[in-house]
Amino acid sequence: MELIDGKKISAEIKQELANEVCLLKEAGQKIPHLVAVLVGSDPASETYVASKVKSCQEVGFKSTEMRYSDDITEEQVLEIVKKLNEDDDVDGYIVQLPLPKHISEQKILLAIDPNKDVDGFHPYNVGKMVTGLPTYLPATPAGIVELLRRYKIQTQGKHCVVIGRSNIVGTPMSVLMSRKDEYADCTVTICHSRTQNIKEYTLKADILIVALGIPHFVTADMVREGAVVVDVGIHRVPSDKTKSGFRLVGDVDFETVAPKCSYITPVPGGVGPMTIVSLLQNTLKASKGLV
Amino acid sequence: MELIDGKKISAEIKQELANEVCLLKEAGQKIPHLVAVLVGSDPASETYVASKVKSCQEVGFKSTEMRYSDDITEEQVLEIVKKLNEDDDVDGYIVQLPLPKHISEQKILLAIDPNKDVDGFHPYNVGKMVTGLPTYLPATPAGIVELLRRYKIQTQGKHCVVIGRSNIVGTPMSVLMSRKDEYADCTVTICHSRTQNIKEYTLKADILIVALGIPHFVTADMVREGAVVVDVGIHRVPSDKTKSGFRLVGDVDFETVAPKCSYITPVPGGVGPMTIVSLLQNTLKASKGLV
Repeated sequence: MELIDGKKISAEIKQELANEVCLLKEAGQKIPHLVAVLVGSDPASETYVASKVKSCQEVGFKSTEMRYSDDITEEQVLEIVKKLNEDDDVDGYIVQLPLPKHISEQKILLAIDPNKDVDGFHPYNVGKMVTGLPTYLPATPAGIVELLRRYKIQTQGKHCVVIGRSNIVGTPMSVLMSRKDEYADCTVTICHSRTQNIKEYTLKADILIVALGIPHFVTADMVREGAVVVDVGIHRVPSDKTKSGFRLVGDVDFETVAPKCSYITPVPGGVGPMTIVSLLQNTLKASKGLV
Repeated sequence: MELIDGKKISAEIKQELANEVCLLKEAGQKIPHLVAVLVGSDPASETYVASKVKSCQEVGFKSTEMRYSDDITEEQVLEIVKKLNEDDDVDGYIVQLPLPKHISEQKILLAIDPNKDVDGFHPYNVGKMVTGLPTYLPATPAGIVELLRRYKIQTQGKHCVVIGRSNIVGTPMSVLMSRKDEYADCTVTICHSRTQNIKEYTLKADILIVALGIPHFVTADMVREGAVVVDVGIHRVPSDKTKSGFRLVGDVDFETVAPKCSYITPVPGGVGPMTIVSLLQNTLKASKGLV
């Protein structure tokens, strides 16, 4: 069993991005600039945004955090989006979700200029991905493909089973793995909450990608010997073994599943660190005008 | 075994559309107007366009056929598209594919106003479909879902296997069948040219949708007893039993497969007639401003 070390790979990619920034600077070209819009004070959102800003700093990108209290109106957020669309200094931006309930996430998303939508969530970019046109790939699926590529895991003709059909992970993941591409070209099965006898599917998987959001959902009896397992879940569960009183676990019961795998991503340190790296890669693409 | 009669269902839907047109007329409202742009003289394209125009006439839609010789330039086609985008009398339009090689189909497609893209091929509409927003569904997949609905074929929790990953049938079909919806909510497997041991997958299918483009690809030994089989293929093969010297067959070997099925679509008269009906439904949607 080999561990897929997302922490190490993400550090490597950050180093590559930092080198790119150096070259851009030397050539007198524009440094990529990412803006993160944060509304309200959801602790998880604050952590995510802080982490994105920190990652920008690490690789030498310019970053701006724009914070607003949760009594901001939808109209005001739309006005901010409009200004970001028009601001030539901003290459890409994200509006951190979730937004307060009185603001329509869909309305905000549709107002974002697809050329600056480095999250890859705008339907125009989703459709470009599905039809194979160059675009910003959604961060988590793109990060997973990058891990497969860096570990040179052969995927062509293999059976990939994706558990979960969310718009930001499961569904785009299933599309990416089925397209014609070096680290794709799989026969893909997408399972979800309505799937019956899910074990019948997971036991057939050469590559199992789990993004259901249920801690320890995948157990050893569901995984075939030699499978590649990618765990997208991340949950805080109580623990008497850590000082903090909790620990992070994934959708996969790592301890029992890992011994059966050829490759597996740990939680934390697997898929998680790749997500931010994908966002940085998209921002570089945006600044180079590649989409 | 019950035959899924696409000819009958499409006639019913056309009657429903004709009734709608009557009501619109009585209310003094605008009659839906579809424009079909045809470049060159590909015989298959001519047949398709003629058939779309005829169907418009049958239901009382206004239709316009715009024909151009194949020495038209890309720039000129873009100019036509621009005018159609701006023409308030045109609710929806299609540019019949394939286009001559000197014209980029992608460039033309991206120039079409997504609000008038009744083929549902523009990436913005594809992305809206994938993320569950209201949009024009691509004609063939939408027609297949409509057949399942009219025959009240239970799909939720079933295993649907789609063969083929094209942008206009296989891939959108797999997405539609996996989403949360009454005639969907399947566990979906998408197979294609790189799939190994395809029989292992097809034998597990409760619902098998075949859109690979190979005559008689699916044979009886690949289908499980009681399966629902939907055949998207249509091929002209030589025959000494018909006056014309040829007959139409699908991707499924109907004669041997049909006896094993609970439901099956014939070729011709199955999926084919539904495609145009979906286009008409999209045109009505467009004229009502529902997308």
